[in-house]
Amino acid sequence: MVFEAPKGLRIVALAGGVGGAKLADGLARILDPVSLTIVVNTGDDFWHLGLRISPDLDTVCYTLAGIASPKTGWGQAGDSWAAIEAVAALGGPDWFRLGDKDLGTSLERTRLLSEGKTLSEITRRFCSTWEVLPAVLPMSDDECPTIVVTDQGELEFQDYFVRLRCEPRVSGFRLDRAQAASPASGIIAAIDAADLVIICPSNPWVSVDPILAVPGVRQAVARRTVVAVSPIIGGQAVKGPAAKMYRELGIEPSPLSVASHYRSLLDGMVMDRVDGRLQPAVADLGLAVLVTDTLMKSLKDRTQLSQDTLEFGLGVNQ
Amino acid sequence: MVFEAPKGLRIVALAGGVGGAKLADGLARILDPVSLTIVVNTGDDFWHLGLRISPDLDTVCYTLAGIASPKTGWGQAGDSWAAIEAVAALGGPDWFRLGDKDLGTSLERTRLLSEGKTLSEITRRFCSTWEVLPAVLPMSDDECPTIVVTDQGELEFQDYFVRLRCEPRVSGFRLDRAQAASPASGIIAAIDAADLVIICPSNPWVSVDPILAVPGVRQAVARRTVVAVSPIIGGQAVKGPAAKMYRELGIEPSPLSVASHYRSLLDGMVMDRVDGRLQPAVADLGLAVLVTDTLMKSLKDRTQLSQDTLEFGLGVNQ
Repeated sequence: MVFEAPKGLRIVALAGGVGGAKLADGLARILDPVSLTIVVNTGDDFWHLGLRISPDLDTVCYTLAGIASPKTGWGQAGDSWAAIEAVAALGGPDWFRLGDKDLGTSLERTRLLSEGKTLSEITRRFCSTWEVLPAVLPMSDDECPTIVVTDQGELEFQDYFVRLRCEPRVSGFRLDRAQAASPASGIIAAIDAADLVIICPSNPWVSVDPILAVPGVRQAVARRTVVAVSPIIGGQAVKGPAAKMYRELGIEPSPLSVASHYRSLLDGMVMDRVDGRLQPAVADLGLAVLVTDTLMKSLKDRTQLSQDTLEFGLGVNQ
Repeated sequence: MVFEAPKGLRIVALAGGVGGAKLADGLARILDPVSLTIVVNTGDDFWHLGLRISPDLDTVCYTLAGIASPKTGWGQAGDSWAAIEAVAALGGPDWFRLGDKDLGTSLERTRLLSEGKTLSEITRRFCSTWEVLPAVLPMSDDECPTIVVTDQGELEFQDYFVRLRCEPRVSGFRLDRAQAASPASGIIAAIDAADLVIICPSNPWVSVDPILAVPGVRQAVARRTVVAVSPIIGGQAVKGPAAKMYRELGIEPSPLSVASHYRSLLDGMVMDRVDGRLQPAVADLGLAVLVTDTLMKSLKDRTQLSQDTLEFGLGVNQ
């Protein structure tokens, strides 16, 4: 499997958590590093135990570095839990399971932030240590927490996602802070230069919409060729609460719903074979459709889906 | 070995790092917990990696809890180093060797401080978890860093002690912040009620002087019966830079120098047999002198020295 990339190709991937990280990793494995820019959701970032934690950035970077936990998809492989267990023994909060190595990442990020470094600069520095070659950019250097509006009130994302295990019923999202943020340096230029923007199979509501909410990003993306890979397969999210959110919002979770969600931006949609019967309906939205295997269990799955998506996306407007 | 404590006995121990923690532990092993209050130096406390670190409090508490590292005297037994090694790998500072469990302590302390809890309250809570029964009180709930004046400038204690490994030449100390601090709640009352104040074998300049510098403490101590255990044995400190500091300040490191240092407060001095020749000189300062084995290698050494010191101290003014 070799992807013959056109010379000077420029790809931007928009990514959130584990699914997005896997596709971004597949892209990184078949593209020249200078061809790829990964823009990552920071709406999940939060302060916890005095530390600035950036779950999606870390998941993407760990995955591309080959040090992500293969079991969970987040955190580092072979991590230990001595610190958080000590916190728990003292009666402190242990609902956010920070491994010891993972804690090292957040300690150093927090220290560098306190020195005045931006999240972009810190991420670049970390990627250099981890030998992550493509550009990994946070969507913004500003703090822009996504708020999940639920029957238990308005919750910061990690509160909803981890502490309350997605149990509250969702009625909407507030992206005010993302809407008031500045895009991180280089994002708009990367999108403007992109031959193709790939929306990774990440949660549309809480992983991708926050990126698109940052001023200028949606408009820049809308000017490019854009394909999305559905995070919904057979009515389920591979991981996380996307399907549950769709149902609570009164929408059937399906690639058709995902395509409708991004409709104004999209040129093409990539969906799984198990959802093949929805191809005509997605095509009826005026989109090119690629039906293929989208479940990424192995590294080979990641590169295969990346190759399929690239070939599909680069051909979609020709 | 049984110490027959008089009913209603009240003992206050002033303690700094490892040596002080060992004697405090010996006292805790032979006294009824309600009889003992340990007042701990917080002049070494500092902010590092966004965390509030209280080295002497932790050393005293870990030692009394029986979870201190037997190898180093500080940190926890069987701790791991995954987090600080991750920080180091990212180019961050690893000169202060925080173990993973130890990090848990500082994370939870920092979190509780950010919630508005005082260091005293936090220490009480931690001691309850660790089943440390005697009262362990920080000298102050205010931040009062000890400044070491050196040929490389004015340094915070941990900068001097750990980062620069005590290499700079010391010319003095600044305790301004301790002098402007409030004593932690309960300290002055404990001292006022004490039948005996024991100055543990801690560094006089940077472990005990900061405690005495807190307004009201020196005056309260001066009204009680006070004995000190020399941290200098045979011209050397058992641990740490006390002897080096003495020499750089132009003073011969010896129990006589320690006795002179505390002279205005002291009733009695406990010193090691290897320094027996200095007994007359110390007695000439107007002090009772106990010459005994003061090196604490085993738990038995701790309790023996505690018993010797208590019996000596309680008899010194009778």
